[in-house]
Amino acid sequence: MWRELLPVGRAPGGGYRRHAWTDADAECRAWFREQAAARGLTHEVDRNGNQWAWLGSPEDGDAVVTGSHLDSVPDGGAFDGPLGVVSAFAALDELRARGARPARPLAVVNFGDEEGARFGPACVGSRLTTGRLTPEAARELRDADGVTLPRAMERAGYDPEAIGADPERLARVGAFVELHIEQGRRLVDAPDDRPVGVASAIWPHGRWRFDFHGEANHAGTTRLEDRRDPMLTYANTVLAARKKARLAGALATFGKVAVEPNGVNAIASLVRGWLDSRAADEATLAAVVAEIERAAVERGARDGVRVEVVRESFTPVVEFAHGLRDRIAARLGGAPLLPTGAGHDAGVLSAEVPTAMLYVRNPTGVSHSPAEIAEEDDCAAGVRALADTLEDLACP
Amino acid sequence: MWRELLPVGRAPGGGYRRHAWTDADAECRAWFREQAAARGLTHEVDRNGNQWAWLGSPEDGDAVVTGSHLDSVPDGGAFDGPLGVVSAFAALDELRARGARPARPLAVVNFGDEEGARFGPACVGSRLTTGRLTPEAARELRDADGVTLPRAMERAGYDPEAIGADPERLARVGAFVELHIEQGRRLVDAPDDRPVGVASAIWPHGRWRFDFHGEANHAGTTRLEDRRDPMLTYANTVLAARKKARLAGALATFGKVAVEPNGVNAIASLVRGWLDSRAADEATLAAVVAEIERAAVERGARDGVRVEVVRESFTPVVEFAHGLRDRIAARLGGAPLLPTGAGHDAGVLSAEVPTAMLYVRNPTGVSHSPAEIAEEDDCAAGVRALADTLEDLACP
Repeated sequence: MWRELLPVGRAPGGGYRRHAWTDADAECRAWFREQAAARGLTHEVDRNGNQWAWLGSPEDGDAVVTGSHLDSVPDGGAFDGPLGVVSAFAALDELRARGARPARPLAVVNFGDEEGARFGPACVGSRLTTGRLTPEAARELRDADGVTLPRAMERAGYDPEAIGADPERLARVGAFVELHIEQGRRLVDAPDDRPVGVASAIWPHGRWRFDFHGEANHAGTTRLEDRRDPMLTYANTVLAARKKARLAGALATFGKVAVEPNGVNAIASLVRGWLDSRAADEATLAAVVAEIERAAVERGARDGVRVEVVRESFTPVVEFAHGLRDRIAARLGGAPLLPTGAGHDAGVLSAEVPTAMLYVRNPTGVSHSPAEIAEEDDCAAGVRALADTLEDLACP
Repeated sequence: MWRELLPVGRAPGGGYRRHAWTDADAECRAWFREQAAARGLTHEVDRNGNQWAWLGSPEDGDAVVTGSHLDSVPDGGAFDGPLGVVSAFAALDELRARGARPARPLAVVNFGDEEGARFGPACVGSRLTTGRLTPEAARELRDADGVTLPRAMERAGYDPEAIGADPERLARVGAFVELHIEQGRRLVDAPDDRPVGVASAIWPHGRWRFDFHGEANHAGTTRLEDRRDPMLTYANTVLAARKKARLAGALATFGKVAVEPNGVNAIASLVRGWLDSRAADEATLAAVVAEIERAAVERGARDGVRVEVVRESFTPVVEFAHGLRDRIAARLGGAPLLPTGAGHDAGVLSAEVPTAMLYVRNPTGVSHSPAEIAEEDDCAAGVRALADTLEDLACP
């Protein structure tokens, strides 16, 4: 099952480029359909392009749903997303092998466009379904080539007119469990040997666009004292962000930059840098971002550079349902509880239905890179843990 | 004359985008042909696509040639290049009005692709002609869309097979004088009111590509201490470059950056920054660049980032021919001598023929930007100075 999916959307460098509504995405979706068919599961695509594979009748309600996503970041790894979908199918196989008799419907789900690599916002499939992203806002999204989300969906054979909140479908879901590779080193660094953990919370996080407005000029003729060079202000802000985050025990990253005119012999007129910041609580996050902005404005005043900050997205803290979380951790023999800084479809769904996450150990701790990895034994332990969880929830 | 050229290649923001072998470039070239025809000058295009307009017979040799270029940087100003070509035609008009009788042939030239905005290297037209750029190297050049220089020339109706050194044509040139808007504030800041200056030298300058190799990872989950974030090393190097240049009285600029994967929630795997640096002498320049590289490598060691530096181009110091320079300055009533950090076709030609440059005052000092400007009176003074120079050189 895993082997068929591995070559899809793999770039020559080893990283994956499975962006929403591309050919690679279509191949992943075809794979999902085949897996459903091979198991006699009922396949359906909802109005937002999310795929579901049902064991039992969806109309019965109170279903136990598991799954993740199949799309990737640019040059991402093989596990982020796909491990949760593959493990979901494998856990159903395991339940059958155990002769389990579910009293609730079970389903595997593949949420569309989780990474937001093509159109910007993350978790588009689940956020449309829960109504957290409106169809009007979604229709305005464009990729780097100017292709709108509706046009991309249409080209991929989906109906963009249909997108929007889907309360009926959500009402069928009694619980959602997402298995994911750990994006960090908590399990591998822990003193005891535990391949699987349970999510406690998702840190609040957001994206802020910093626009540094200077003045274009000739790099070979303009005296240093006559310059208004926004690259200097940007550079100072990058270093300030790291320092402020370190002092607060938070995370702050500038990973994306756009420069105008971006010429070797031209002082930039505009440097645009995107800040990704996360912290254990919202007050800390707000304080860190405010300090970074203050540092940017102060340095901008020295450089003759005007700084403008726009919050592009913000996700409040997610505390996973304590009852479900503790029940799963107990069923798994006291699996450790782990917080994370990463957003997930499970975080989006947690506001609507009881939701939990399982993490599988990642020996490199690396994520969003081809270096992301999980050992085969740990993947098998993940499947068993997910099967245990589904059995506990669905089989009385 | 000026009015017809102004709208060509002007972007909505007011800046010019007249890149080599584009439609805007073709319009500028058509304008040049018309100006030549309107004056009864003989128009020719040389094997490298440079345009010439001759008064008198080129075969007579020892010609006095003036002109500049019509292409622009991205969102450049109206004067950088075109002022020299327009003033050249206007100076011929002025000579005629004065009833001057040249004993040497005169020519106006428009050198192609001076700015290198599309294919990278600057002064392609003059460097091909002097043999400083080989046809083999030129044929490898590609623009951002992957279009090669030969393909672009072909599309514009030129024969890329013909490019290469052109010693016969150079041998006809007895002297070259390029008029250019000043790219700096030396004339406007000087205590005496002088609209025109004469070039003394062009600072040695070069471009260095700094590759900062880190490790891609998830911005929301990777602990700060586990990161190898090349954006930090880049940022520190930008600030170090400014400081080292300031201490040495040199110039150093990072104006162009490329980031991989350039995602908001991804720690970069690679940041590539281009350093443009210039100084009054080559020893100072070499020392400044070495210090910047040392600072980058030192910080890289702290960040777990490998730094690789490649010199992409280097132009030694240009001292304009002292005899010609002093003769022109004297003829212009003791015009001030000015050094510059900017490269020019005149700098390329100076190794082959006696060459001089005139600068017209720029009240903003700004260059490579729509804010670049010259007053009408100063432009007229520039034309008179150029006519005086041509008369002095060509009319016994």
